[in-house]
Amino acid sequence: MKCSKCSEKAVIKINYMGQALCEKHFRRFFKKRVRKTCKGLIKYDDKVGVAVSGGKDSGVMLHLLSKQTDPEAILIDEGIEGYRDKNVENAKKVCEELNVPLNIYSFEEEYGFRLDGLDDKNLSRGPCSYCGVLRRSLLNEKSRELGFDKLAIGHNLDDEAQTGLMNFVRGEFHRIARMGKEVGVVEEEDFVKRFKPLRRCPEKEVVTYGLLIGLDAGFDECPYVKQAYRADIRDSLNDWEEKYPGTKFSVLNSSDELAGLIEDEFRGEIKKCSECGEPCAGDICQKCSMLREIRETL
Amino acid sequence: MKCSKCSEKAVIKINYMGQALCEKHFRRFFKKRVRKTCKGLIKYDDKVGVAVSGGKDSGVMLHLLSKQTDPEAILIDEGIEGYRDKNVENAKKVCEELNVPLNIYSFEEEYGFRLDGLDDKNLSRGPCSYCGVLRRSLLNEKSRELGFDKLAIGHNLDDEAQTGLMNFVRGEFHRIARMGKEVGVVEEEDFVKRFKPLRRCPEKEVVTYGLLIGLDAGFDECPYVKQAYRADIRDSLNDWEEKYPGTKFSVLNSSDELAGLIEDEFRGEIKKCSECGEPCAGDICQKCSMLREIRETL
Repeated sequence: MKCSKCSEKAVIKINYMGQALCEKHFRRFFKKRVRKTCKGLIKYDDKVGVAVSGGKDSGVMLHLLSKQTDPEAILIDEGIEGYRDKNVENAKKVCEELNVPLNIYSFEEEYGFRLDGLDDKNLSRGPCSYCGVLRRSLLNEKSRELGFDKLAIGHNLDDEAQTGLMNFVRGEFHRIARMGKEVGVVEEEDFVKRFKPLRRCPEKEVVTYGLLIGLDAGFDECPYVKQAYRADIRDSLNDWEEKYPGTKFSVLNSSDELAGLIEDEFRGEIKKCSECGEPCAGDICQKCSMLREIRETL
Repeated sequence: MKCSKCSEKAVIKINYMGQALCEKHFRRFFKKRVRKTCKGLIKYDDKVGVAVSGGKDSGVMLHLLSKQTDPEAILIDEGIEGYRDKNVENAKKVCEELNVPLNIYSFEEEYGFRLDGLDDKNLSRGPCSYCGVLRRSLLNEKSRELGFDKLAIGHNLDDEAQTGLMNFVRGEFHRIARMGKEVGVVEEEDFVKRFKPLRRCPEKEVVTYGLLIGLDAGFDECPYVKQAYRADIRDSLNDWEEKYPGTKFSVLNSSDELAGLIEDEFRGEIKKCSECGEPCAGDICQKCSMLREIRETL
Protein backbone atom coordinates (compact mmCIF):
# COMPACT_ATOMS: atom_id res chain seq x y z
CA MET A 1 0.00 0.00 0.00
CA LYS A 2 1.47 3.34 -1.10
CA CYS A 3 0.97 6.76 0.45
CA SER A 4 -1.74 8.76 -1.31
CA LYS A 5 0.48 11.86 -1.23
CA CYS A 6 3.87 10.42 -2.27
CA SER A 7 5.39 7.12 -3.36
CA GLU A 8 6.50 5.99 0.12
CA LYS A 9 5.11 2.93 1.86
CA ALA A 10 1.93 3.73 3.78
CA VAL A 11 1.78 3.10 7.54
CA ILE A 12 -1.97 3.67 7.93
CA LYS A 13 -5.16 3.54 5.91
CA ILE A 14 -7.64 6.28 6.75
CA ASN A 15 -10.98 5.08 5.42
CA TYR A 16 -13.06 8.18 6.13
CA MET A 17 -10.71 10.12 3.84
CA GLY A 18 -10.20 7.32 1.35
CA GLN A 19 -6.45 7.74 1.78
CA ALA A 20 -3.37 5.86 2.93
CA LEU A 21 -0.47 7.80 4.40
CA CYS A 22 3.26 7.19 4.86
CA GLU A 23 4.94 7.96 8.17
CA LYS A 24 5.92 11.50 7.24
CA HIS A 25 2.55 12.49 5.85
CA PHE A 26 0.62 10.76 8.65
CA ARG A 27 2.63 12.50 11.38
CA ARG A 28 2.13 15.82 9.67
CA PHE A 29 -1.62 15.16 9.26
CA PHE A 30 -2.03 14.02 12.87
CA LYS A 31 -0.15 16.96 14.36
CA LYS A 32 -2.08 19.42 12.21
CA ARG A 33 -5.39 18.03 13.43
CA VAL A 34 -4.34 18.29 17.09
CA ARG A 35 -3.11 21.84 16.53
CA LYS A 36 -6.41 22.73 14.89
CA THR A 37 -8.40 21.14 17.73
CA CYS A 38 -6.46 23.26 20.25
CA LYS A 39 -6.82 26.44 18.21
CA GLY A 40 -8.19 29.28 20.30
CA LEU A 41 -8.13 27.16 23.45
CA ILE A 42 -4.70 28.00 24.78
CA LYS A 43 -3.33 31.49 25.10
CA TYR A 44 0.34 32.24 24.60
CA ASP A 45 1.00 32.80 28.30
CA ASP A 46 -1.28 30.06 29.67
CA LYS A 47 0.23 27.63 32.11
CA VAL A 48 -0.90 24.34 30.63
CA GLY A 49 -1.37 21.23 32.73
CA VAL A 50 -1.55 17.81 31.12
CA ALA A 51 -3.40 15.00 32.87
CA VAL A 52 -1.34 11.86 32.32
CA SER A 53 -2.10 8.26 33.17
CA GLY A 54 0.85 6.41 31.69
CA GLY A 55 -1.40 5.22 28.84
CA LYS A 56 -1.11 5.81 25.11
CA ASP A 57 -3.55 8.70 24.76
CA SER A 58 -2.06 10.96 27.40
CA GLY A 59 1.47 9.97 26.30
CA VAL A 60 0.82 11.05 22.72
CA MET A 61 -0.90 14.22 23.94
CA LEU A 62 2.05 15.13 26.17
CA HIS A 63 4.49 14.57 23.32
CA LEU A 64 2.61 17.02 21.13
CA LEU A 65 1.86 19.64 23.78
CA SER A 66 5.44 19.65 25.05
CA LYS A 67 6.50 20.95 21.63
CA GLN A 68 4.05 23.84 21.60
CA THR A 69 3.65 24.83 25.21
CA ASP A 70 5.76 24.51 28.33
CA PRO A 71 3.47 22.14 30.20
CA GLU A 72 3.50 20.42 33.55
CA ALA A 73 2.05 16.97 33.96
CA ILE A 74 -0.31 15.81 36.69
CA LEU A 75 -1.06 12.21 37.58
CA ILE A 76 -3.53 10.77 40.07
CA ASP A 77 -2.47 7.46 41.61
CA GLU A 78 -5.69 5.80 42.77
CA GLY A 79 -3.87 2.86 44.34
CA ILE A 80 -4.58 -0.01 41.94
CA GLU A 81 -1.96 -2.71 42.27
CA GLY A 82 -0.56 -4.25 39.12
CA TYR A 83 -2.12 -1.53 36.95
CA ARG A 84 -1.60 2.06 38.03
CA ASP A 85 1.81 1.34 39.59
CA LYS A 86 3.10 0.06 36.24
CA ASN A 87 1.58 3.04 34.44
CA VAL A 88 3.11 5.49 36.90
CA GLU A 89 6.53 4.18 35.88
CA ASN A 90 5.68 4.70 32.18
CA ALA A 91 4.50 8.23 32.89
CA LYS A 92 7.70 9.03 34.81
CA LYS A 93 9.83 7.79 31.93
CA VAL A 94 7.93 9.79 29.31
CA CYS A 95 7.99 12.99 31.39
CA GLU A 96 11.68 12.61 32.02
CA GLU A 97 12.42 12.13 28.32
CA LEU A 98 10.39 15.20 27.45
CA ASN A 99 11.76 17.17 30.38
CA VAL A 100 8.26 17.87 31.71
CA PRO A 101 7.75 18.22 35.50
CA LEU A 102 5.43 15.51 36.80
CA ASN A 103 3.18 16.11 39.82
CA ILE A 104 1.84 12.93 41.40
CA TYR A 105 -0.99 12.86 43.92
CA SER A 106 -2.35 9.71 45.45
CA PHE A 107 -5.70 8.76 46.95
CA GLU A 108 -3.68 7.27 49.80
CA GLU A 109 -2.03 10.56 50.77
CA GLU A 110 -4.93 12.83 49.97
CA TYR A 111 -7.86 10.76 51.13
CA GLY A 112 -6.25 8.16 53.41
CA PHE A 113 -7.14 5.03 51.45
CA ARG A 114 -6.26 3.19 48.23
CA LEU A 115 -8.93 2.25 45.68
CA ASP A 116 -7.92 -1.38 46.23
CA GLY A 117 -8.92 -0.89 49.85
CA LEU A 118 -12.55 -0.22 48.92
CA ASP A 119 -13.14 -3.46 47.09
CA ASP A 120 -14.20 -5.55 50.07
CA LYS A 121 -16.12 -2.77 51.80
CA ASN A 122 -19.87 -2.85 51.76
CA LEU A 123 -20.34 0.35 49.75
CA SER A 124 -23.49 1.41 47.91
CA ARG A 125 -21.79 1.67 44.51
CA GLY A 126 -19.05 -0.06 42.52
CA PRO A 127 -15.42 1.16 42.81
CA CYS A 128 -15.53 2.97 39.42
CA SER A 129 -18.19 5.41 40.67
CA TYR A 130 -16.02 6.52 43.61
CA CYS A 131 -12.85 6.51 41.53
CA GLY A 132 -14.32 8.76 38.83
CA VAL A 133 -15.62 11.40 41.19
CA LEU A 134 -12.59 11.40 43.51
CA ARG A 135 -10.08 11.47 40.65
CA ARG A 136 -11.80 14.32 38.80
CA SER A 137 -12.15 16.30 41.98
CA LEU A 138 -8.48 15.86 42.93
CA LEU A 139 -7.39 16.73 39.40
CA ASN A 140 -9.31 20.00 39.57
CA GLU A 141 -8.15 20.99 43.06
CA LYS A 142 -4.50 20.22 42.39
CA SER A 143 -4.54 21.83 38.96
CA ARG A 144 -5.79 25.02 40.59
CA GLU A 145 -3.14 24.80 43.32
CA LEU A 146 -0.46 24.29 40.68
CA GLY A 147 -1.69 27.42 38.93
CA PHE A 148 -2.76 25.73 35.72
CA ASP A 149 -4.84 27.97 33.51
CA LYS A 150 -5.94 25.04 31.37
CA LEU A 151 -5.89 21.30 31.83
CA ALA A 152 -5.49 18.95 28.85
CA ILE A 153 -7.41 15.67 29.03
CA GLY A 154 -6.49 12.75 26.76
CA HIS A 155 -9.89 11.56 25.51
CA ASN A 156 -9.77 10.50 21.88
CA LEU A 157 -12.51 10.49 19.23
CA ASP A 158 -13.65 6.98 20.12
CA ASP A 159 -14.06 7.91 23.80
CA GLU A 160 -15.97 11.05 22.96
CA ALA A 161 -18.24 9.46 20.36
CA GLN A 162 -19.01 6.56 22.72
CA THR A 163 -19.85 8.97 25.52
CA GLY A 164 -22.05 11.11 23.27
CA LEU A 165 -23.94 8.12 21.89
CA MET A 166 -24.35 6.52 25.33
CA ASN A 167 -25.72 9.73 26.75
CA PHE A 168 -28.18 10.09 23.88
CA VAL A 169 -29.35 6.47 24.03
CA ARG A 170 -29.81 6.66 27.79
CA GLY A 171 -31.38 10.10 27.64
CA GLU A 172 -28.75 11.66 29.89
CA PHE A 173 -29.00 15.12 28.45
CA HIS A 174 -27.45 16.83 31.46
CA ARG A 175 -24.30 14.82 30.77
CA ILE A 176 -24.26 15.86 27.12
CA ALA A 177 -24.68 19.49 28.16
CA ARG A 178 -21.69 19.05 30.47
CA MET A 179 -19.56 17.63 27.64
CA GLY A 180 -19.15 21.24 26.59
CA LYS A 181 -19.78 23.09 23.41
CA GLU A 182 -17.86 22.45 20.23
CA VAL A 183 -14.40 21.81 21.55
CA GLY A 184 -14.97 20.16 24.87
CA VAL A 185 -14.08 23.14 27.01
CA VAL A 186 -16.10 23.43 30.17
CA GLU A 187 -16.12 27.02 31.27
CA GLU A 188 -17.14 27.43 34.84
CA GLU A 189 -15.79 29.36 37.75
CA ASP A 190 -13.61 27.39 40.14
CA PHE A 191 -13.19 24.70 37.53
CA VAL A 192 -9.85 24.73 35.81
CA LYS A 193 -10.80 24.88 32.16
CA ARG A 194 -10.33 21.52 30.49
CA PHE A 195 -9.65 20.87 26.84
CA LYS A 196 -9.24 17.71 24.81
CA PRO A 197 -6.56 17.93 22.13
CA LEU A 198 -7.22 14.39 20.84
CA ARG A 199 -11.00 14.50 20.65
CA ARG A 200 -10.92 14.54 16.86
CA CYS A 201 -8.29 11.77 16.62
CA PRO A 202 -9.62 8.22 16.14
CA GLU A 203 -8.09 5.73 18.58
CA LYS A 204 -6.48 3.83 15.73
CA GLU A 205 -4.58 6.96 14.72
CA VAL A 206 -3.47 7.69 18.30
CA VAL A 207 -2.14 4.14 18.64
CA THR A 208 -0.33 4.41 15.31
CA TYR A 209 1.19 7.77 16.25
CA GLY A 210 2.29 6.33 19.61
CA LEU A 211 4.02 3.40 17.90
CA LEU A 212 5.74 5.71 15.41
CA ILE A 213 7.23 7.91 18.14
CA GLY A 214 8.24 4.82 20.15
CA LEU A 215 6.07 5.73 23.11
CA ASP A 216 6.39 3.66 26.29
CA ALA A 217 2.79 3.28 27.26
CA GLY A 218 0.53 0.87 29.05
CA PHE A 219 -2.11 -0.88 26.98
CA ASP A 220 -3.64 -2.76 29.93
CA GLU A 221 -7.17 -2.08 31.03
CA CYS A 222 -7.93 -1.18 34.60
CA PRO A 223 -8.84 -4.40 36.46
CA TYR A 224 -11.98 -2.77 37.86
CA VAL A 225 -13.39 -1.87 34.48
CA LYS A 226 -16.52 -3.84 33.79
CA GLN A 227 -18.15 -1.32 31.51
CA ALA A 228 -20.27 -3.77 29.57
CA TYR A 229 -22.57 -1.02 28.36
CA ARG A 230 -19.79 1.16 26.95
CA ALA A 231 -18.26 -1.92 25.31
CA ASP A 232 -21.53 -2.66 23.50
CA ILE A 233 -21.84 0.93 22.33
CA ARG A 234 -18.20 0.82 21.21
CA ASP A 235 -18.79 -2.37 19.20
CA SER A 236 -21.78 -0.87 17.38
CA LEU A 237 -19.89 2.35 16.66
CA ASN A 238 -16.95 0.33 15.32
CA ASP A 239 -19.32 -1.68 13.08
CA TRP A 240 -20.96 1.45 11.72
CA GLU A 241 -17.59 3.18 11.19
CA GLU A 242 -16.36 0.15 9.23
CA LYS A 243 -19.39 0.29 6.93
CA TYR A 244 -19.99 4.05 6.91
CA PRO A 245 -16.61 5.71 7.41
CA GLY A 246 -16.92 9.00 9.24
CA THR A 247 -19.67 7.84 11.60
CA LYS A 248 -17.64 8.57 14.74
CA PHE A 249 -17.02 12.13 13.61
CA SER A 250 -20.68 12.48 12.81
CA VAL A 251 -21.69 11.29 16.30
CA LEU A 252 -19.18 13.68 17.88
CA ASN A 253 -20.57 16.54 15.82
CA SER A 254 -24.11 15.63 16.84
CA SER A 255 -23.15 15.56 20.53
CA ASP A 256 -21.41 18.91 20.20
CA GLU A 257 -24.32 20.46 18.34
CA LEU A 258 -26.72 19.10 20.92
CA ALA A 259 -24.54 20.32 23.79
CA GLY A 260 -24.49 23.79 22.26
CA LEU A 261 -28.27 23.81 21.89
CA ILE A 262 -29.06 22.65 25.39
CA GLU A 263 -26.23 23.84 27.58
CA ASP A 264 -28.18 26.77 29.03
CA GLU A 265 -31.20 24.56 29.64
CA PHE A 266 -29.27 22.05 31.71
CA ARG A 267 -26.68 24.23 33.38
CA GLY A 268 -27.73 24.40 36.99
CA GLU A 269 -26.67 26.98 39.49
CA ILE A 270 -23.17 26.40 40.86
CA LYS A 271 -22.92 26.65 44.65
CA LYS A 272 -20.06 25.95 47.02
CA CYS A 273 -19.85 22.73 49.02
CA SER A 274 -20.48 23.47 52.71
CA GLU A 275 -17.73 21.03 53.69
CA CYS A 276 -14.83 21.63 51.30
CA GLY A 277 -15.82 24.85 49.52
CA GLU A 278 -15.42 23.29 46.08
CA PRO A 279 -18.00 24.05 43.38
CA CYS A 280 -21.06 21.82 43.51
CA ALA A 281 -24.73 21.64 42.57
CA GLY A 282 -26.22 20.98 46.01
CA ASP A 283 -25.22 21.73 49.59
CA ILE A 284 -22.53 19.11 49.81
CA CYS A 285 -20.44 17.96 46.86
CA GLN A 286 -20.37 14.41 45.55
CA LYS A 287 -16.76 14.01 46.66
CA CYS A 288 -17.53 14.93 50.27
CA SER A 289 -20.59 12.71 50.46
CA MET A 290 -18.65 9.80 48.99
CA LEU A 291 -15.72 10.37 51.35
CA ARG A 292 -18.16 10.44 54.26
CA GLU A 293 -19.65 7.10 53.19
CA ILE A 294 -16.22 5.52 52.66
CA ARG A 295 -14.79 6.78 55.95
CA GLU A 296 -17.68 5.28 57.87
CA THR A 297 -16.68 1.85 56.58
CA LEU A 298 -12.93 2.16 57.23
CA MET B 1 -44.55 -19.90 30.75
CA LYS B 2 -47.41 -18.56 32.87
CA CYS B 3 -48.98 -15.11 32.77
CA SER B 4 -47.54 -12.82 35.46
CA LYS B 5 -51.06 -11.61 36.30
CA CYS B 6 -53.04 -14.88 36.35
CA SER B 7 -52.46 -18.59 35.93
CA GLU B 8 -53.20 -18.72 32.18
CA LYS B 9 -50.61 -19.67 29.58
CA ALA B 10 -48.57 -16.65 28.48
CA VAL B 11 -48.53 -15.63 24.79
CA ILE B 12 -45.72 -13.08 25.06
CA LYS B 13 -42.73 -12.27 27.24
CA ILE B 14 -42.18 -8.57 27.77
CA ASN B 15 -38.59 -8.22 28.90
CA TYR B 16 -38.54 -4.49 29.67
CA MET B 17 -41.27 -5.12 32.23
CA GLY B 18 -39.95 -8.47 33.43
CA GLN B 19 -43.40 -9.97 32.76
CA ALA B 20 -45.13 -12.57 30.64
CA LEU B 21 -48.77 -12.06 29.69
CA CYS B 22 -51.64 -14.31 28.62
CA GLU B 23 -53.84 -13.35 25.69
CA LYS B 24 -56.43 -11.54 27.77
CA HIS B 25 -53.93 -9.52 29.80
CA PHE B 26 -51.72 -8.77 26.80
CA ARG B 27 -54.63 -7.48 24.73
CA ARG B 28 -55.75 -5.31 27.61
CA PHE B 29 -52.20 -4.02 28.16
CA PHE B 30 -51.68 -3.30 24.45
CA LYS B 31 -54.96 -1.48 24.00
CA LYS B 32 -54.38 0.59 27.11
CA ARG B 33 -51.02 1.74 25.83
CA VAL B 34 -52.44 2.78 22.46
CA ARG B 35 -55.27 4.62 24.19
CA LYS B 36 -52.75 6.40 26.40
CA THR B 37 -50.59 7.32 23.40
CA CYS B 38 -53.60 8.87 21.68
CA LYS B 39 -54.75 10.71 24.80
CA GLY B 40 -55.32 14.39 24.11
CA LEU B 41 -54.62 13.94 20.40
CA ILE B 42 -58.11 13.28 19.10
CA LYS B 43 -61.15 15.34 19.98
CA TYR B 44 -64.58 13.82 20.30
CA ASP B 45 -65.83 15.30 17.04
CA ASP B 46 -62.62 14.92 15.00
CA LYS B 47 -62.89 13.19 11.68
CA VAL B 48 -60.04 10.72 11.91
CA GLY B 49 -58.25 9.38 8.85
CA VAL B 50 -56.13 6.27 9.06
CA ALA B 51 -53.29 5.75 6.60
CA VAL B 52 -53.31 2.08 5.70
CA SER B 53 -50.87 0.06 3.63
CA GLY B 54 -52.21 -3.46 3.97
CA GLY B 55 -49.38 -4.28 6.37
CA LYS B 56 -49.52 -5.38 10.00
CA ASP B 57 -48.94 -2.02 11.69
CA SER B 58 -51.67 -0.08 9.94
CA GLY B 59 -54.00 -3.11 10.18
CA VAL B 60 -53.63 -3.30 13.96
CA MET B 61 -53.99 0.47 14.23
CA LEU B 62 -57.19 0.46 12.18
CA HIS B 63 -58.64 -2.33 14.33
CA LEU B 64 -58.10 -0.30 17.48
CA LEU B 65 -59.14 3.09 16.11
CA SER B 66 -62.31 1.69 14.55
CA LYS B 67 -63.48 0.83 18.07
CA GLN B 68 -62.94 4.32 19.46
CA THR B 69 -63.54 6.66 16.57
CA ASP B 70 -65.51 6.48 13.34
CA PRO B 71 -62.55 6.59 10.98
CA GLU B 72 -62.03 6.52 7.24
CA ALA B 73 -59.03 4.82 5.73
CA ILE B 74 -56.74 6.20 3.04
CA LEU B 75 -54.30 4.19 0.95
CA ILE B 76 -51.75 5.33 -1.59
CA ASP B 77 -51.06 2.84 -4.37
CA GLU B 78 -47.62 3.70 -5.70
CA GLY B 79 -47.76 1.08 -8.45
CA ILE B 80 -45.39 -1.62 -7.24
CA GLU B 81 -46.22 -4.94 -8.84
CA GLY B 82 -46.26 -8.05 -6.68
CA TYR B 83 -46.13 -5.96 -3.50
CA ARG B 84 -48.58 -3.10 -3.21
CA ASP B 85 -51.24 -4.85 -5.31
CA LYS B 86 -51.27 -7.77 -2.84
CA ASN B 87 -51.38 -5.38 0.09
CA VAL B 88 -54.23 -3.37 -1.42
CA GLU B 89 -56.30 -6.57 -1.35
CA ASN B 90 -55.44 -7.12 2.32
CA ALA B 91 -56.39 -3.55 3.13
CA LYS B 92 -59.73 -3.88 1.31
CA LYS B 93 -60.54 -7.04 3.25
CA VAL B 94 -59.69 -5.50 6.62
CA CYS B 95 -61.65 -2.31 5.91
CA GLU B 96 -64.66 -4.33 4.77
CA GLU B 97 -64.60 -6.46 7.92
CA LEU B 98 -64.40 -3.39 10.09
CA ASN B 99 -66.91 -1.50 8.00
CA VAL B 100 -64.50 1.38 7.42
CA PRO B 101 -64.69 3.34 4.14
CA LEU B 102 -61.43 3.01 2.19
CA ASN B 103 -60.20 5.78 -0.11
CA ILE B 104 -57.56 4.66 -2.59
CA TYR B 105 -55.41 7.05 -4.63
CA SER B 106 -52.77 5.94 -7.07
CA PHE B 107 -49.62 7.54 -8.42
CA GLU B 108 -50.85 6.42 -11.83
CA GLU B 109 -54.08 8.44 -11.69
CA GLU B 110 -52.73 11.40 -9.74
CA TYR B 111 -49.28 11.78 -11.27
CA GLY B 112 -49.56 9.81 -14.52
CA PHE B 113 -46.93 7.14 -13.80
CA ARG B 114 -46.36 4.07 -11.62
CA LEU B 115 -43.34 3.79 -9.33
CA ASP B 116 -42.32 0.70 -11.32
CA GLY B 117 -42.14 2.97 -14.35
CA LEU B 118 -39.33 5.04 -12.81
CA ASP B 119 -36.91 2.18 -12.28
CA ASP B 120 -35.25 2.26 -15.69
CA LYS B 121 -35.27 6.04 -16.00
CA ASN B 122 -32.06 7.94 -15.55
CA LEU B 123 -33.15 9.87 -12.44
CA SER B 124 -30.83 11.65 -10.00
CA ARG B 125 -32.05 9.66 -6.99
CA GLY B 126 -33.24 6.16 -6.12
CA PRO B 127 -36.97 5.29 -6.36
CA CYS B 128 -37.46 5.46 -2.54
CA SER B 129 -36.63 9.18 -2.47
CA TYR B 130 -39.35 10.00 -5.01
CA CYS B 131 -41.81 7.55 -3.47
CA GLY B 132 -41.46 9.00 0.04
CA VAL B 133 -42.02 12.60 -0.99
CA LEU B 134 -44.82 11.88 -3.48
CA ARG B 135 -46.66 9.54 -1.11
CA ARG B 136 -46.51 11.92 1.87
CA SER B 137 -47.60 14.81 -0.28
CA LEU B 138 -50.56 12.90 -1.73
CA LEU B 139 -51.56 11.65 1.72
CA ASN B 140 -51.67 15.21 2.99
CA GLU B 141 -53.56 16.69 0.04
CA LYS B 142 -56.15 13.94 -0.07
CA SER B 143 -56.59 13.89 3.71
CA ARG B 144 -57.38 17.59 3.55
CA GLU B 145 -59.81 17.05 0.66
CA LEU B 146 -61.51 14.25 2.60
CA GLY B 147 -61.91 16.63 5.52
CA PHE B 148 -59.77 14.67 7.96
CA ASP B 149 -58.94 16.65 11.09
CA LYS B 150 -56.24 14.16 12.08
CA LEU B 151 -54.36 11.47 10.22
CA ALA B 152 -53.14 8.35 12.02
CA ILE B 153 -49.81 6.92 10.83
CA GLY B 154 -48.80 3.35 11.72
CA HIS B 155 -45.18 3.77 12.80
CA ASN B 156 -44.32 1.51 15.71
CA LEU B 157 -41.69 1.94 18.45
CA ASP B 158 -38.99 0.20 16.43
CA ASP B 159 -39.55 2.50 13.45
CA GLU B 160 -39.51 5.60 15.63
CA ALA B 161 -36.44 4.59 17.67
CA GLN B 162 -34.54 3.69 14.49
CA THR B 163 -35.42 7.02 12.92
CA GLY B 164 -34.43 8.95 16.04
CA LEU B 165 -31.11 7.15 16.40
CA MET B 166 -30.31 7.46 12.67
CA ASN B 167 -31.02 11.16 12.74
CA PHE B 168 -28.80 11.64 15.80
CA VAL B 169 -25.93 9.55 14.42
CA ARG B 170 -26.06 11.37 11.09
CA GLY B 171 -26.53 14.76 12.70
CA GLU B 172 -29.83 15.41 10.94
CA PHE B 173 -31.28 17.64 13.61
CA HIS B 174 -33.82 19.27 11.33
CA ARG B 175 -35.33 15.81 10.84
CA ILE B 176 -35.48 15.21 14.59
CA ALA B 177 -37.16 18.59 15.05
CA ARG B 178 -39.71 17.53 12.45
CA MET B 179 -40.43 14.27 14.31
CA GLY B 180 -42.51 16.45 16.61
CA LYS B 181 -42.67 16.99 20.29
CA GLU B 182 -43.65 14.28 22.75
CA VAL B 183 -46.29 12.45 20.83
CA GLY B 184 -45.26 12.84 17.24
CA VAL B 185 -47.84 15.43 16.32
CA VAL B 186 -46.66 17.86 13.72
CA GLU B 187 -48.67 21.02 14.03
CA GLU B 188 -48.40 23.21 11.03
CA GLU B 189 -50.92 25.06 8.97
CA ASP B 190 -52.00 23.33 5.76
CA PHE B 191 -50.64 20.07 7.08
CA VAL B 192 -53.28 17.69 8.31
CA LYS B 193 -52.14 16.90 11.83
CA ARG B 194 -50.60 13.46 12.04
CA PHE B 195 -50.41 11.23 15.06
CA LYS B 196 -48.88 7.83 15.68
CA PRO B 197 -50.96 5.59 17.93
CA LEU B 198 -48.40 2.73 17.85
CA ARG B 199 -45.24 4.73 18.49
CA ARG B 200 -44.91 3.27 21.99
CA CYS B 201 -45.62 -0.30 20.87
CA PRO B 202 -42.60 -2.50 20.10
CA GLU B 203 -42.84 -4.27 16.74
CA LYS B 204 -42.88 -7.64 18.48
CA GLU B 205 -46.03 -6.63 20.36
CA VAL B 206 -47.74 -5.29 17.24
CA VAL B 207 -47.03 -8.57 15.42
CA THR B 208 -48.34 -10.58 18.39
CA TYR B 209 -51.47 -8.47 18.62
CA GLY B 210 -52.03 -8.85 14.87
CA LEU B 211 -51.77 -12.64 15.14
CA LEU B 212 -54.16 -12.72 18.09
CA ILE B 213 -56.87 -10.80 16.25
CA GLY B 214 -56.34 -12.93 13.13
CA LEU B 215 -55.30 -9.97 11.00
CA ASP B 216 -54.85 -10.52 7.27
CA ALA B 217 -51.71 -8.54 6.64
CA GLY B 218 -48.74 -8.51 4.36
CA PHE B 219 -45.37 -9.25 5.91
CA ASP B 220 -43.41 -8.76 2.68
CA GLU B 221 -40.93 -5.96 2.32
CA CYS B 222 -41.16 -3.53 -0.55
CA PRO B 223 -38.90 -4.81 -3.37
CA TYR B 224 -37.27 -1.38 -3.70
CA VAL B 225 -36.18 -1.24 -0.09
CA LYS B 226 -32.43 -1.38 0.12
CA GLN B 227 -32.12 0.55 3.35
CA ALA B 228 -28.81 -0.92 4.43
CA TYR B 229 -28.20 1.93 6.85
CA ARG B 230 -31.52 1.59 8.64
CA ALA B 231 -31.00 -2.19 8.82
CA ASP B 232 -27.65 -1.71 10.57
CA ILE B 233 -29.15 0.73 13.04
CA ARG B 234 -32.04 -1.68 13.61
CA ASP B 235 -29.63 -4.56 14.31
CA SER B 236 -27.71 -2.52 16.89
CA LEU B 237 -30.91 -1.36 18.55
CA ASN B 238 -32.17 -4.96 18.69
CA ASP B 239 -28.87 -6.08 20.25
CA TRP B 240 -28.99 -3.33 22.88
CA GLU B 241 -32.66 -4.01 23.62
CA GLU B 242 -31.87 -7.69 24.15
CA LYS B 243 -29.13 -6.86 26.65
CA TYR B 244 -30.61 -3.70 28.15
CA PRO B 245 -34.39 -4.03 27.95
CA GLY B 246 -36.07 -0.66 27.55
CA THR B 247 -33.41 0.79 25.24
CA LYS B 248 -35.86 1.45 22.42
CA PHE B 249 -38.12 3.42 24.75
CA SER B 250 -35.13 5.31 26.02
CA VAL B 251 -34.05 6.26 22.48
CA LEU B 252 -37.60 7.36 21.64
CA ASN B 253 -37.70 9.50 24.79
CA SER B 254 -34.35 11.05 23.89
CA SER B 255 -35.55 11.89 20.38
CA ASP B 256 -38.73 13.39 21.75
CA GLU B 257 -36.89 15.40 24.38
CA LEU B 258 -34.44 16.61 21.77
CA ALA B 259 -37.25 17.48 19.36
CA GLY B 260 -38.93 19.51 22.09
CA LEU B 261 -35.71 21.38 22.86
CA ILE B 262 -34.85 22.25 19.29
CA GLU B 263 -38.11 22.49 17.41
CA ASP B 264 -38.18 26.27 17.43
CA GLU B 265 -34.54 26.44 16.40
CA PHE B 266 -35.06 24.29 13.33
CA ARG B 267 -38.56 25.24 12.31
CA GLY B 268 -38.17 27.27 9.17
CA GLU B 269 -40.70 29.64 7.72
CA ILE B 270 -43.48 27.87 5.83
CA LYS B 271 -44.24 29.36 2.42
CA LYS B 272 -46.56 28.21 -0.35
CA CYS B 273 -45.27 26.41 -3.42
CA SER B 274 -45.52 28.69 -6.45
CA GLU B 275 -46.68 25.77 -8.61
CA CYS B 276 -49.16 23.81 -6.50
CA GLY B 277 -49.82 26.09 -3.54
CA GLU B 278 -48.96 23.38 -1.02
CA PRO B 279 -46.89 24.33 2.04
CA CYS B 280 -43.13 24.26 1.44
CA ALA B 281 -39.84 25.69 2.65
CA GLY B 282 -38.61 27.29 -0.57
CA ASP B 283 -40.26 28.69 -3.70
CA ILE B 284 -41.19 25.37 -5.20
CA CYS B 285 -42.00 22.27 -3.16
CA GLN B 286 -40.08 19.01 -3.31
CA LYS B 287 -43.00 17.25 -4.90
CA CYS B 288 -43.24 19.71 -7.79
CA SER B 289 -39.51 19.72 -8.44
CA MET B 290 -39.46 15.91 -8.40
CA LEU B 291 -42.48 15.69 -10.70
CA ARG B 292 -40.80 18.12 -13.07
CA GLU B 293 -37.66 15.96 -13.16
CA ILE B 294 -39.66 12.75 -13.66
CA ARG B 295 -41.88 14.19 -16.38
CA GLU B 296 -38.87 15.30 -18.37
CA THR B 297 -37.76 11.66 -18.60
CA LEU B 298 -41.17 10.18 -19.51
